[in-house]
Amino acid sequence: MAARGVDALVVTSLPNVLYLTNFSGSAAIAIVDAQRVTFLTDSRYVTSIEDTRGTPHESPTLELIAVDGSYDAKLAATLRSGSARRIGFEAAHLTVARHDWLTKTLNGAVELVSTEGLVENLRVVKDDYEIATLREAARRLAGTVDRVIAAVRRGRTERDVALAVDSEVRRAGFERAAFETIVASGPHAALPHARPGERTITESDLVVLDFGGVYDSYCVDLTRTVSVGKADSRVREVYHAVREAHDRAIASVAPGRSRFDIDRAARESLASYGLDTAFGHGTGHGLGIEVHEDPRITRRRPDVDARDEAVASGMVFTIEPGAYVPGWGGVRIEDDVLVTDSGVEVLTDVSTELVEL
Amino acid sequence: MAARGVDALVVTSLPNVLYLTNFSGSAAIAIVDAQRVTFLTDSRYVTSIEDTRGTPHESPTLELIAVDGSYDAKLAATLRSGSARRIGFEAAHLTVARHDWLTKTLNGAVELVSTEGLVENLRVVKDDYEIATLREAARRLAGTVDRVIAAVRRGRTERDVALAVDSEVRRAGFERAAFETIVASGPHAALPHARPGERTITESDLVVLDFGGVYDSYCVDLTRTVSVGKADSRVREVYHAVREAHDRAIASVAPGRSRFDIDRAARESLASYGLDTAFGHGTGHGLGIEVHEDPRITRRRPDVDARDEAVASGMVFTIEPGAYVPGWGGVRIEDDVLVTDSGVEVLTDVSTELVEL
Repeated sequence: MAARGVDALVVTSLPNVLYLTNFSGSAAIAIVDAQRVTFLTDSRYVTSIEDTRGTPHESPTLELIAVDGSYDAKLAATLRSGSARRIGFEAAHLTVARHDWLTKTLNGAVELVSTEGLVENLRVVKDDYEIATLREAARRLAGTVDRVIAAVRRGRTERDVALAVDSEVRRAGFERAAFETIVASGPHAALPHARPGERTITESDLVVLDFGGVYDSYCVDLTRTVSVGKADSRVREVYHAVREAHDRAIASVAPGRSRFDIDRAARESLASYGLDTAFGHGTGHGLGIEVHEDPRITRRRPDVDARDEAVASGMVFTIEPGAYVPGWGGVRIEDDVLVTDSGVEVLTDVSTELVEL
Repeated sequence: MAARGVDALVVTSLPNVLYLTNFSGSAAIAIVDAQRVTFLTDSRYVTSIEDTRGTPHESPTLELIAVDGSYDAKLAATLRSGSARRIGFEAAHLTVARHDWLTKTLNGAVELVSTEGLVENLRVVKDDYEIATLREAARRLAGTVDRVIAAVRRGRTERDVALAVDSEVRRAGFERAAFETIVASGPHAALPHARPGERTITESDLVVLDFGGVYDSYCVDLTRTVSVGKADSRVREVYHAVREAHDRAIASVAPGRSRFDIDRAARESLASYGLDTAFGHGTGHGLGIEVHEDPRITRRRPDVDARDEAVASGMVFTIEPGAYVPGWGGVRIEDDVLVTDSGVEVLTDVSTELVEL
């Protein structure tokens, strides 16, 4: 904030609000300055904030303001009555409409200054508490894999398998699924983001199982692909190629390594099997309060990525190469990794051997 | 668009994209002009778009552009190469950062014009297909109520009850829950947006059960409150007051009625029992592609609501008054209603009698 020359920062991104205050409700605005957090929320959440007083989840310097009507009207009134005059806002989260309304309503009483990534830059490297939380979450998610795979049975619909997966995730102590569970069978496995539907699991299907959970507000994410019945030689070849890409990408992770180089490790490995064009998405994404956050483990996009960006100790992200062949099916293998001082720790430590059901 | 003087509209809100094109994935931008929809998505979704060709879900005038890198860079290139020169954007959805980047990158080649609510104003009144979908969704959700209530048992945790509720919703044919299911027992029932936790359901608890589902992309939402064991006189009184507020608010719904008046019907009814201050949230919210959309059935906020706003035939929204007493508990009763030409139709047609378990 000092570098941007602002006296205070208006935080409207809810994941950022949660990071700063432990608030996990659906509506709040935090105003952060060097002394305190001024916290705006409505009657639905006032009691839950007051309940954290005296607990480890308390945000000790938090000054609570109840909103009874419009959040932005209360925000404008609060900014007007405060002493800060140059106030940062989160340009990547505030919409043009809200910004225009605030500018008009504040009418020069304070200066709104565009900022980007002030809180996200803190979030990308996890602290010890976050690492312990993500490690425990990943351990629990990895612990469901055997039962998740056992839920895949001939004659069951994708949707019924997804329901069983969600139950396993909740039974493992997660608050909720981190995203809509993917169960993609047969030709659907060629769609990286297929939604589970009424298709019935059938002999010789490949089935992609991609699922995640939220544990103490932190997200983890895991994918395994199984063969229903004996895998034929093509399935074995594609599976082997994806698994090798997964292993090589993980082996390339180390502090100081460019995120683009980690992606390249997966992509070049697949290319050696002629499968680079079958891999259309990125190799991974950061995990934390959001299931998709920085760092993005992707190809460098010349139009927007000005320079290499190194990963650092304390970052947590997925490694999830895949190969998708329209009409035939697909394979994806995904694990969650932590960058350590010396290299990498796989947090979802469970076999990646091909399972034939 | 003609009234705003724009040749084309860039639609970045995903619910608006879904409304216009039937696309239900997680990343896309639509550019709409009088002739066609130009549709930007990435490789994860290109196959699923192509699979809709020739089906009733096809968007017939859709011209597909594959994004391989940055969406906004591809958007800028597409706008530059098109013929439209005054192009609307959705100010309520585009962030300041994206707007600034596009403005800089387009460098005057096209003029970006701020618009608000162009697609939302179409969405607020449902067409026959949407009404049929919401009616069927509400029928299915109402059909789960007996089994949802049966899931509430002494000795079970809130979280286990929530898991059972989610299973019932999925078994009823919903794609997924419309929001995180609320199971709030005992003192937690005083928190309108409590998250299900490890508290065990206990004799003489009130338990608020608030759950919803997404059916063919449309959201419905329902709440019942049950008493564990025989209700005492205070429980009966509060329940009766909330039920009366619910009934009066529904009875006040008719085309041409102000949304603020519908809220007032519930609020004044609760006031006659001294419970108006125990009701801190709005009376209802619109339902559709989003679980919270217009119309908002709320108090008029003098700082932002310039005038009365009438509801119209074809609007669908919740009616969900509640009363919350810190330390004691709370009651909420919620149904989904459709404004008809002659008045109102309750879509979630299931008893609101107090259930004593």
